[in-house]
Amino acid sequence: MDRRKALFLTTGIAAGGGTVALTTAFKPHIQPAKKPGRISPSKPAGGWKYSNLNPAATAALAHKNYTEGSCMYAVYTSVISQLADKFGEPYTSFPCHMMKYGHGGVGGFGTLCGTLNGAAALIGLLVSDKKTQNALIADLFRWYEQTPLPEFKPENSESEIPTSVAGSTLCHASTTNWTQASDCGIGSKERKERCRRLSGDVASRLVTMLNDFFEGNYTAPGFDNETVRTCVTCHGKEGKLKTVSTDMNCTSCHSKSVGHQLFADLHYKCMQEKE
Amino acid sequence: MDRRKALFLTTGIAAGGGTVALTTAFKPHIQPAKKPGRISPSKPAGGWKYSNLNPAATAALAHKNYTEGSCMYAVYTSVISQLADKFGEPYTSFPCHMMKYGHGGVGGFGTLCGTLNGAAALIGLLVSDKKTQNALIADLFRWYEQTPLPEFKPENSESEIPTSVAGSTLCHASTTNWTQASDCGIGSKERKERCRRLSGDVASRLVTMLNDFFEGNYTAPGFDNETVRTCVTCHGKEGKLKTVSTDMNCTSCHSKSVGHQLFADLHYKCMQEKE
Repeated sequence: MDRRKALFLTTGIAAGGGTVALTTAFKPHIQPAKKPGRISPSKPAGGWKYSNLNPAATAALAHKNYTEGSCMYAVYTSVISQLADKFGEPYTSFPCHMMKYGHGGVGGFGTLCGTLNGAAALIGLLVSDKKTQNALIADLFRWYEQTPLPEFKPENSESEIPTSVAGSTLCHASTTNWTQASDCGIGSKERKERCRRLSGDVASRLVTMLNDFFEGNYTAPGFDNETVRTCVTCHGKEGKLKTVSTDMNCTSCHSKSVGHQLFADLHYKCMQEKE
Repeated sequence: MDRRKALFLTTGIAAGGGTVALTTAFKPHIQPAKKPGRISPSKPAGGWKYSNLNPAATAALAHKNYTEGSCMYAVYTSVISQLADKFGEPYTSFPCHMMKYGHGGVGGFGTLCGTLNGAAALIGLLVSDKKTQNALIADLFRWYEQTPLPEFKPENSESEIPTSVAGSTLCHASTTNWTQASDCGIGSKERKERCRRLSGDVASRLVTMLNDFFEGNYTAPGFDNETVRTCVTCHGKEGKLKTVSTDMNCTSCHSKSVGHQLFADLHYKCMQEKE
């Protein structure tokens, strides 16, 4: 038995409310990555019909509407206004002003990115089944965490905005990552234009997914986050600790726990050797 | 000059995109705590009128509605259904089903607590001014971070649910904290009842605030978070780094950065000596 394995097998760690002895009796298996899977379309929720929308036009609308009410409002209205043009009521009467609350991670508090909150609210409005909602939201959120953004560029604009990989769905983590990648300040006009273009990206991605979904061509891509799968092996409801329920990328916040990280790296390698 | 001060004055830390030399030329002042301040009522947003609601009855409604659509839906419908009873339209036609998306921190992803997302959405619907929305949201969110919850107990129930201080507005952090305080699993019926009662608490707190606000008796309490004030002194848009915009409690995630925490403690003490 090598030193690492010996350490793994005998280590006790303070975790959760108590101490968990990682003996040979505890043989966790890392959850496998989800495989891509076709999801059948459902009936529109509560009679709120959907009609194919053009992703590029939707992105341009979101970019335009950002100046009226920031990120959540931009994404939400880019879709609702087009459906109101096509169907009239009930879309025409929807109180879109309410979606301004999501700016800056809800009232400027820095929590969930408003573009994602707006997109998830649209999924809630249009898709009736909870499991399907969850799958669409996970798809969109993973893509946001892992993709260099913003991609959208307004027509006739010559300005280039640097991209960054957010690594998180939280407003303050996503914007901080971008300020570090771009060397622009959090209060700069470039940062505001980045969030404005990002609204275009999320709106475009969302309607691409919804177009496929309502046409019966949507395949949940099984976007993977290896750290989440590794961490929930112990911390999740199937694990020994049963203390955490999350799909958020763990290492955006928790990688800075030096002691835990050393343990998790070791733990992960040992588990891989066992597989 | 004592050792600590000397270290503070000569230390260079890797932070943000580059290295910041903390010389005597850099004399940050920690932002003062906000003082409580009266906020005048505004007109209802877009004609969506408000009428005084009973906090205890609203809490009971949220607790009841939780089983239909989880946390965000519970808080949102507890208020909307009562306003629909009083005013009819436009409340009667609001597509409340959409709010189910907020369960488990949005589609189960673990981000913003759904009770807070639902309450903030109501503030967005009912309050017209952005600065006032932000103040109400900050008040509610700080209270949630700092208060032992749940407090609500359904009538005729004999079961006691342990309380915990969330220390965070995020679903997965809040629930994990509670599982550790209660020694109940994340998938347990006790954890679900905790989130159900928490929906009652947030709904009750929200309508207490809205009652005061629309009657002209609302004073933003100036809830303080000393760590946020300390961290944004350097990281915020007025600081040297200008990389972060947030009001979230920092130490829920970032306390585990051992090196940074040692530095921040030292830094903070030195700044206090300078004040």
